[in-house]
Formats: sequence, C-alpha cells, structure tokens
Amino acid sequence: MILEAFGEPLVMREMEIPPLEKGQVLVRLSASGVCGSDVHQRNGEDPRIPLPIILGHEGVGTVADLSGEKKSVEGDRFSPGDLIIWNRGISCGECWFCTVAREPSLCPDRRVYGINKSSANPPYLNGCYADHVILENGTDIFRVDGDCDPAVLVSASCSGATTAHAFDMIGDSLAGKTVVVQGPGPLGLYAVAFAKKLGASRVVVIGGSRNRLELCTEFGASLLLNRHETTVESRREALLDMTYGRGADIVVEATGAYGAAVEGIRLLRKGGTFLTTGYSQPVGTEEVDFYRDIVAKNATVQGVWVSDTRHLSQALALVTGNPRLFEKMITHRFTLDKANEALDVMENREAIKAVITF
Amino acid sequence: MILEAFGEPLVMREMEIPPLEKGQVLVRLSASGVCGSDVHQRNGEDPRIPLPIILGHEGVGTVADLSGEKKSVEGDRFSPGDLIIWNRGISCGECWFCTVAREPSLCPDRRVYGINKSSANPPYLNGCYADHVILENGTDIFRVDGDCDPAVLVSASCSGATTAHAFDMIGDSLAGKTVVVQGPGPLGLYAVAFAKKLGASRVVVIGGSRNRLELCTEFGASLLLNRHETTVESRREALLDMTYGRGADIVVEATGAYGAAVEGIRLLRKGGTFLTTGYSQPVGTEEVDFYRDIVAKNATVQGVWVSDTRHLSQALALVTGNPRLFEKMITHRFTLDKANEALDVMENREAIKAVITF
Amino acid sequence: MILEAFGEPLVMREMEIPPLEKGQVLVRLSASGVCGSDVHQRNGEDPRIPLPIILGHEGVGTVADLSGEKKSVEGDRFSPGDLIIWNRGISCGECWFCTVAREPSLCPDRRVYGINKSSANPPYLNGCYADHVILENGTDIFRVDGDCDPAVLVSASCSGATTAHAFDMIGDSLAGKTVVVQGPGPLGLYAVAFAKKLGASRVVVIGGSRNRLELCTEFGASLLLNRHETTVESRREALLDMTYGRGADIVVEATGAYGAAVEGIRLLRKGGTFLTTGYSQPVGTEEVDFYRDIVAKNATVQGVWVSDTRHLSQALALVTGNPRLFEKMITHRFTLDKANEALDVMENREAIKAVITF
Amino acid sequence: MILEAFGEPLVMREMEIPPLEKGQVLVRLSASGVCGSDVHQRNGEDPRIPLPIILGHEGVGTVADLSGEKKSVEGDRFSPGDLIIWNRGISCGECWFCTVAREPSLCPDRRVYGINKSSANPPYLNGCYADHVILENGTDIFRVDGDCDPAVLVSASCSGATTAHAFDMIGDSLAGKTVVVQGPGPLGLYAVAFAKKLGASRVVVIGGSRNRLELCTEFGASLLLNRHETTVESRREALLDMTYGRGADIVVEATGAYGAAVEGIRLLRKGGTFLTTGYSQPVGTEEVDFYRDIVAKNATVQGVWVSDTRHLSQALALVTGNPRLFEKMITHRFTLDKANEALDVMENREAIKAVITF
Repeated sequence: MILEAFGEPLVMREMEIPPLEKGQVLVRLSASGVCGSDVHQRNGEDPRIPLPIILGHEGVGTVADLSGEKKSVEGDRFSPGDLIIWNRGISCGECWFCTVAREPSLCPDRRVYGINKSSANPPYLNGCYADHVILENGTDIFRVDGDCDPAVLVSASCSGATTAHAFDMIGDSLAGKTVVVQGPGPLGLYAVAFAKKLGASRVVVIGGSRNRLELCTEFGASLLLNRHETTVESRREALLDMTYGRGADIVVEATGAYGAAVEGIRLLRKGGTFLTTGYSQPVGTEEVDFYRDIVAKNATVQGVWVSDTRHLSQALALVTGNPRLFEKMITHRFTLDKANEALDVMENREAIKAVITF
Repeated sequence: MILEAFGEPLVMREMEIPPLEKGQVLVRLSASGVCGSDVHQRNGEDPRIPLPIILGHEGVGTVADLSGEKKSVEGDRFSPGDLIIWNRGISCGECWFCTVAREPSLCPDRRVYGINKSSANPPYLNGCYADHVILENGTDIFRVDGDCDPAVLVSASCSGATTAHAFDMIGDSLAGKTVVVQGPGPLGLYAVAFAKKLGASRVVVIGGSRNRLELCTEFGASLLLNRHETTVESRREALLDMTYGRGADIVVEATGAYGAAVEGIRLLRKGGTFLTTGYSQPVGTEEVDFYRDIVAKNATVQGVWVSDTRHLSQALALVTGNPRLFEKMITHRFTLDKANEALDVMENREAIKAVITF
Repeated sequence: MILEAFGEPLVMREMEIPPLEKGQVLVRLSASGVCGSDVHQRNGEDPRIPLPIILGHEGVGTVADLSGEKKSVEGDRFSPGDLIIWNRGISCGECWFCTVAREPSLCPDRRVYGINKSSANPPYLNGCYADHVILENGTDIFRVDGDCDPAVLVSASCSGATTAHAFDMIGDSLAGKTVVVQGPGPLGLYAVAFAKKLGASRVVVIGGSRNRLELCTEFGASLLLNRHETTVESRREALLDMTYGRGADIVVEATGAYGAAVEGIRLLRKGGTFLTTGYSQPVGTEEVDFYRDIVAKNATVQGVWVSDTRHLSQALALVTGNPRLFEKMITHRFTLDKANEALDVMENREAIKAVITF
Repeated sequence: MILEAFGEPLVMREMEIPPLEKGQVLVRLSASGVCGSDVHQRNGEDPRIPLPIILGHEGVGTVADLSGEKKSVEGDRFSPGDLIIWNRGISCGECWFCTVAREPSLCPDRRVYGINKSSANPPYLNGCYADHVILENGTDIFRVDGDCDPAVLVSASCSGATTAHAFDMIGDSLAGKTVVVQGPGPLGLYAVAFAKKLGASRVVVIGGSRNRLELCTEFGASLLLNRHETTVESRREALLDMTYGRGADIVVEATGAYGAAVEGIRLLRKGGTFLTTGYSQPVGTEEVDFYRDIVAKNATVQGVWVSDTRHLSQALALVTGNPRLFEKMITHRFTLDKANEALDVMENREAIKAVITF
C-alpha cells in the first residue's frame, strides 16, 4: 500500500521482491502497527516523508530469507520462520552522536522504515504496510521466542520504545513515586505501564476519553482525571491533595496537544521532572514562566525524541512480560487492503490502536 | 528486656518513663522485629554494642506522648495514637557526610536505636525490645495510614531499607534485566521484591533452604538454585544458559557467608554490578582475581552499608503496596517476655523472620 | 544597617548583642558581599523579605564567641579568631525534601540570613550588613585555612554556590565539551570558571558589557559575543561554526533577562542541556516551541534554585584554589556605613561585585 | 616489523599494499606508540595475540588513500594528507553490548589493530609498527587540526582513552575532591591530568621511581609518596592527615602490580570509589576483606577495561589542550627499524613512553 500523493488514499501496488544484498533480511510481515503519526504523514504534515513511500514503521514478521550471516541483538543466528521485531531506525554507527554521545537516535543520518525511506529507492520494500519488508544491513533485530500474538508486539517498536526512552532518562529510582501521565493513548498507556513496572506507587492519568481512561486503570492507574469533568485548577488541587501538597515527582506528557506542556510543568513538585514525548508535530509556541515554574521549582524539563535499540529492548521485555494486558490496547484489526480504513479510525480517534494483520 | 552481659539471656527489668525533653516522642510499641544481627549482638560479636542495652532496632508503634511540636517526614503533625515507623539511625545533619556527600548513613556520629544507645544513658528507653521507646529529637518519622499489621512493617526499617539502599545505588534502569539474589532470608526476599518492583524481567535466587527458596517464588523469583542440589559451576552454567551466555546484569549478595562475594562476582556479565549487603559481621578475607573478574569484566562491586530515611521511605512504599506478600515472611511471633526464644529461632535459622508483638 | 521600609535607604542602628543560646556562634564580620538580589530586596521586589531586616546573605568573618561545642563541616572544633564561611540557608533536616529527596535547598522551612530572618526576631543579628551576625544552631560552617582575603571569598556563598549547584546537576562529564554562558556578571564568571575547572574545552560568553566580557577571558572564556555587535542569529551561526554544526553541549543562563531562556535553548545541540540560574525575580512568560526546541532536540532544560552546603563546598574549593583570579571580580569595596552606596553601584551596574569590608 | 614467534625479536618484512576495499583508509604512519602491553605481547603473555602479527595499536598518521567516501567522527570528509587518529578497537555495532548496553568496548567481536588482527589476514597491514596501516570500514577516525606533534598524540588512543573511560564511570563531580593515583607511568600520568582537568583539588601519587613521580608534579600532583621511602601504613596516615581523617574520594589504580588493589581500596574514604585500570595481565588473586573494606565503607570498586571512541574523544581534547605537557611523557623516540630497542626500553622501565616516529 503506497502513498503516492499527500492527502490521497494509499494505493495497492504489486512489486517485485529484489534479490537480497549481503546482510539484508527479507521479512514476511505478520502484523504492522498503525501509528498516529502515519495519519499525519498521509496528510502531508510530516516534513520527513518522501514520495512515493510505503508507510508503516511498526512491523513484526517472520524471516523469509536472508543473505549471508545475520545475528540477532542477543547473538542468535536466524533461521527462516523465526518471528522477529526490529529497531525501526538505522543509525550510521560512526558519527559523533552514535559514538561519542552514544545517542544513536540523534544520528543525523538515521533512516527509518516507513518514514524517510522511499519505495523508489532500493531495496524498495522499505515500509511495513506491505506483505514483505527488506531489512537493510545494520538493522538491529530481536528474535521473539514463545507464543506471542504479533499484533500485540508491534507497538513496542514505536510508542513503547519512545516511552522507554523517556523513563530511561530519569536519573532517579521511581520507588514510591507519584507519576502523572497526560493523555491516555498508546504513548500514555505505555507510560502508565512503565511507571508501574519501574516502581511508581501511584499513577494519575489526565485525559478526555472515558474509555481510554478506564483502560488506564487496567494498566495500573490509581486516579483518573477526566478533562471534561475537571479544570486545570481542580486537577492541580487533586494532585496536591494526594502528595502532601508537593505535586508530582514525574509528569509524562503524551498528548502533543497545545497547552499540555504548560499544565504538566505546573503539576511538578519542586525538583520534579517533566518528560515530554507527545509533541511529534509542530503545534506552535507555549507561554512558559521560567522564574516561577522552572527556576524556583528546580524543575527538569526533558524532551524525548524517538528511541533506539536499547529502548526497544526495554519495551519488548515489558510487553512480553504481560501480553494479555497489552492486547487490550488493540481496538481494531484490519487486513492490508483496508489500510486506509485503519488510518481513518486512528484519525477520527475511534481506535486506540489499530493493527494490520496478515 | 535488657542485655546486661554478652552471651547471657536478656533480662526483664521495670524502668521509669522519664519526662520528655523538647522534640522527643514517646512510642508505645506495637511490634518489634528480631533481626539476625540482634543474635550476633547478644553473643557479643558486634563491636558497636555498649552494655547494658535494650536491643531491637526495628520498631513500629503508636504515639503515646510528645513534647513540643513534631512533624512527620511528610509534614504531618502527630497526634497521640498515630501509628508510626522511623529511621533507626539518627545522623548529625552537619558533618561532611551529612551535608557535602549527602550520605547521612555514613555520618560518623550516627546513633542507632537498639545498637549503640545504651539504656544507661538518657532517655534510657533506647531500644525496641520494650513496651516503650523514646525517639530523640532528630529522628525521622513516618506516619502509617490505613489498616496495616504493624508486625508486617517492622522489617521495612532494617532489611527493607538496606535493600532499598542497594538498589538505589544502581545507576541504570532494571527494565528487562536479570538479577541474581544470593540468600533467601529477609534481605534476600526484599531483594527479590525490589528487583521485580523496579522492573527486572527475571530473578534467580541461590540458597540452601527449600522452604525459603519456595517463598522466593511467591515474591517473584523465576528460578531457584538450591546449593544442596547444584555446584558453583552448575549454577554458573544455568545462569549463562538463560542469558545468552552473558551472565547476570545485577547480583545482590544477601548472605554474608564466606565465599558468597567471590561466587557472586563471577556470575556477573561484563559490565555487571555486584551489590553486597549481607556482610554485617567480619568473616575474613576472600580471594579476588582483579584482572579476570573485575577489570577484564568492567565490573562494578558496590558495598552497601545500612540505610537512611530515603531508603526507609522506599521500603515502606514497597511493603504497604503489598502487605499480604510481606506477611508471608513472618514465620514466628512472640510476646516481649519471650524475646530470648525469639532470638533462638533466629539463631538456629528456624525462623525466616520473628517479630515481637504487643 | 537596617532596611526599615522598602524603597528607602538602609539606616544605621546600634543593637545589643544578645547572650548566645546553645549551638549559636557569634561572628565578627570581615567581609559582606553585596548581591544583585539585595538591590531588588531594598526595592521591595522580592516577596520573601520581612521588615525590619538586616540585609546581606554573603558573609565571611571570624568566630567571636560560641555557646557549647560546635564543629565545622569538616569536623574541626572552632576557636575564637577562626576565619569562617557558612551556608546562607538553614534547612530543617527532617522533612521529605531534606531526607528523602536529599535536596535541603528545597526545604519549605529553609531560612536564609539576610533574606527571610527579620531583625525583629531573636537573635536579631540575622544579616551580614552588620558588625556581627549570630549563626543559629544548624548552620553549616567551614573554617577557611591559610591566608585568604575575606572579600574574595564572600561570593562563594551565593553566586558561586548557585553555579556549583547548576554544574552538579549535569549527569555527564564536561571533558571536551563546549559551554555557552549567557551573562558575564558574578554568576556568569563563576559559570566560566566552573566550566573550565570541570573540563570543558571551550567556553563562549554572550554579554553586553565589553569590560565584563574581557574579564571572562581571564576566567577562561575562549570566545566573546557582544550583544551590541551581534544578532541572535549571528551568535547562533558563530556557535554552529565552531561545533561542526551541532550547537552547544551546555548553555548556562546567568542573566535573568527576558528572552535569555529562549535564545539559550536554541543554542543547544541535540541532546544538550540548558541550565537556568539567573531568573531570581519574575520577568513574565516566554514563548517556547516545545516541538522544535525541546522534543525534537531531545533537550534538557534544568532550573537551578539557590544552593546547599554541598555546593558551597565546591565553590569554596574553586575560589581558594585560585584567589587571585576571583579577586578580579571585585570592582568596589565600601565600609559598612556606605552600604547604600554599595547597593547603588550594583543597581546601576557600575560594579561587577561590590563588597563591604570591615 | 612482524612478530613471528613469541619471545623472539620482531623482524622487518616488505609487504605489498593491497588494493583498498570500500570504506577502507590507507594511512601513512607518522608516529606509533610503544605500549607496555606490546612487551607482554612480544613475550607471549597476552592470550589475544595471533601470529604472525604487526604489533602496535597506538597510531597517528596521514591519509594516503581511501576508497569511497569516509567521514570523520565529527562529520568531515577526509582528504589525502589529513592528520588522523582512530579508535584502536572496531566493534560490531549490532550486538547487545553495542546497542542495548551501549558499551561498544565490551563487544565480544571487538577487533583491535596490532592486538588481535593477524598480518596473515586481509588487508594484512593491521598494526602500527609499519609504514602503513589499513583502517577497515567501521573504524572511528578523528581528524587532528592544527600543528601538533604526532608523537605526542599517540598515547591518547590507549592509556589516555582508558583513563578517560575510568573517569567517565564516576557518577559524581570531582569538584573539590582528593584523588590518589597508584603508579606514575603513562596510565598514571593521564590519571593525574584527568583528575586535575575534571576539577579535583588535590592529587596524591604513589610510586617507586623518583623521576616518574617528579613528572607527576608537572602534571598537577600535589603530594608524592615514594614507595621506597614510605610504608603502606605511613602512606595511609599521610592521606588521612590531609583529608580530615576521611581518606581519598577516588583512588585510581594504574600499576597492575600485585597488592595495588588491596592497598588502594584501603585508602578510600567511606563512600569512595576505586577505579582499577592497571591490571591488563593476570597477576593472581588478592585477599579482600569484604566486610571491613567494601561493605562497611559503602565503597565502590570499578573495573575499567579498555575504551571506546567516546573516551578517545575525551583524551584527545585533553592532550590537544596542552600538548607541551604531554610531550614530557615521551622519553624515547626510535625509527621503525629500531622497534625492538623501543620495546626493550619499555621492558626495562628505562622509558616512561617510547614512540616510533617516521
């Protein structure tokens, strides 16, 4: 399913599978996640997208063929039929960000399946809205052992890994902490799950959808604050009440909505940390009172951009440790030919998570 | 119950409750934990102990009286009848360790209830094997809300807090990690619980008692290695098998037995961390191959000594988050007059955890 | 010299020295720093100030008398005549911030000499614009050994310690890093000195005063960008040019001027850290593009509020390691009766640092 | 100069320069460092060495030719004649250690020029005791700008980078700290320089050679303790005297001599960190009292194994920031045909650092 023009539906095309070059892996897709950013990409709102392109950066599949020897991150040799998941980004491994800063997700040459790899360039099968994808040499791949529904795993490679990245940047233990999550979508659900998994005592979720909020309870949230039934001020009061007047130790912004950052920072206790993961598209500027909300509170504001293999590893451990929980996140399943419908239910927010299955 | 001579039983004595000085809190004990080190102290093997002394450093009780205004760590004012738990050590707050290093547990003037505060010195009621204890000004106190069995809480203030200290020194997230715990006693059970709570994927426990090991399973252990059914080498093989040949990310030594450190360090993967919490009494020297086991493995060996209020806070959150689990650790309960029997069941390893209740 | 009404000059008053209570130290002041915030306080722009008050939170002096035994942070007993400097804040030592977060500078009960301790309350001598100050029990005091000009030391206790706090919050080594400092006043000069001392390869200073900028060169700056000779965009270009197009690893905001935060954040490289120390009074809100400048850059924005004893220790080591350098920061010296003139030269920015000497 | 049999002298051989494959860089060597481990390797004491081999892992040279496009770590394209230095190890970039742990120096497939790359395998020119070396694709290369003596730079790539790695593992600032360095050889000199560069107040060096110790003073040491004029106990006393009885904040072991680790750990203050970098060959086991020296001191013992590109970057910034200082480390220079003499002066400890220049 190829995006040939922004704002237009994806179109079904037949493509030849090219011969594999050394180090490449041909993958038969089992499931392909539909991410909120795919919607923005179809609409032409993401400047990274070349045309034509096979969208889809969240894939899980089985090894169909491979050229030469290729090992998993854990050191296993692959055999045809192995179920795999991979880091959606490929970094150069040699630049200052990859080697000195050790932050491969900041590599200026980072390429991402389904995002900045056009289907016009070899090896053409560069996105996950397709029967097959070819993983180029340098892709970091995990083999998934055991019996796990591929559809449940796909989100680990994007919203899961990005949320893992956020929590990985907190220098302190979460033991006994109070965490606020803004936005009960896939990023927010992962934030609830990670906060609980890493030791938080209480997780408060702010959101506007009753269904999504209730799902957060199953993920471990202890307090839900519905934006339609509360005000910015009443939410802040509720939080202060439960924290001896201090505020949240950690706030995870997972909406990208205008105003979320300003509300989130104000919910922090003195010395607290604000992790912002949701702003994946421009929404303009917000008004920050540095003196009152950052300096006098000794606050940390941490931007979190995408993720790397380390984070996928953490997200994968989280999901495979409790697949039944994460299955609840998937509200819609489609076949590949219905990819446009899958994008539609994400766009109109009918779905929490839609997955294309094969 | 006073220790008047090393190696002799504690003796029951009646004492006057002195008038409180400013900042002091008189506590009516509800439960007092019997720690393994109390046994060593009765036997005269711990050089910190002055005579005569009321042993017992793990107390939970209710506020009976207080002089002046005293607030909890969370800022609450106390009222008579409040259930409380406190940091067993009091640091000076002004020395280099307290202020510059910010490690109050390393304060050279640290005093500890039931350990280095003789009952010959005011305010006399300085240990928890007694109906009442007087908390001196400077003691950090938490109020325990909700309905919680005091006997379940006591261990939070010693083995729980020390284990919290150990995990607090790991600079990295536990997400997806494999943790080995050596020794399934109270320290080890807390290590299993903290490892799981903070995100570890798998916890392996090494021990010599089938009952204790089985209890570890309830605390979250995924593999038990009984020392009587395995060898040092077979345990290492088992661990390498489950970690793609790498070894453990973290090993927590919680036995204090001669040889534990050397085995534990050898179980680490390259770049792994060994946390040693169990050596609370001298056991002589052990043979370390620095080249092979520390340098060439880029390993971290971290000594963990006692704990401070931060760690009690973390342990308290852990226990109150799942009191039914921690109740299983308590195998014996005694009344105060049976304190010597309580020490005996700890000494002969019949009990995992004995508690004196009132 | 007492501030009796906001906006009015300080007035000279004679006061009785009260008898010392236990733990108090009477100090004969040798030098008292005039801080930029003292000017705001005289003008009534700082909400923390009660009236009447002896201003002055940066003091160095000699022990004149003490009640009971009092030891320095390093454990020395004091003798009359010892030259001392102290942490300007006194925290409670028992609250959640002091004990669990281990951030005594965030203690809600923190009291500060010359800032929120009125001269109407015992022991009255609560600020450093006076012949004597009485340090209350709980004050953390360092003895200064060797022959050091007290006037050079005073700034260590405020701008030096606050800057130490900022650098203490960077989780990473400065080895080889490029640091930008915004504002060449006392905070900025300390930032240049700390950046160099802690390993930065290059320090770039942005400022508006040629004299101040030139002094930065003596402190170790390698590039000066005069705001009157450059634009926001040309400064950004200059920085990108010297960093292979990446931007600054660290930016230290030390001006508090409206707009500084927004410019500073834009100068960061991806993954860089912005430390904001200068906003000690409200200046309104600034427009932040979270998507572009924080999230997509994976940036850290760290507010830095005041300091604690740990930071004073670091600043003291810095200044005593090179007192001749820090002497150059002091442009004006006054006697106590000229305290209003000292405030004036700070207010009109004639002085970089004014000190009252005795 | 090829090592064809252990224990025998290197022999001069003529070799053809093979055609370059894609990504390879042919380097004309300018200087090649003679490392203490080269001596062990000639003697057959290092199990990593295959035969035949061109020894030499510390090289600096100029680009003679390159195949395809190759960029420096900083992103520059290379031109023939550029002066370069490179990370001596090449890691796989795809394994768990490279991607999840982000520790490429722990990669099990790490290959090192002059250490585990035989001259029998393509591209044959795999070590630095030669006119030319061929850098394989995946090598991380820095261009050296400015006019810098290549002989001064070579040590940055081995002892400098390893020492950088050690200091990079300290989680805390060195501001105001006391650092002890054991061993005044190249590793120790770098340790002195890094300790000072990163903010230590005082550096104490323990060694047995008066000349080497005196050189440490030029590198910034403030106290020298000659092993021939002191005892283990008198050295400990000297250190306690200068640290208020506490001991060293950091001890860097840089000798690899039997017994160094045990003495070093005993010199730590409570809560101090021992960094061991010197044990690059087996020396047997040492007797460690875990209770007394590690647990009760809450000490950290950190093994440090080799280094990666991040650390070379830090060492390079250190050396190029003060090349005149590091020039003093070089006591002997030889031409390539005298490589065996160069190894001899390292073996008999006549040289601190010998360099082969071209």
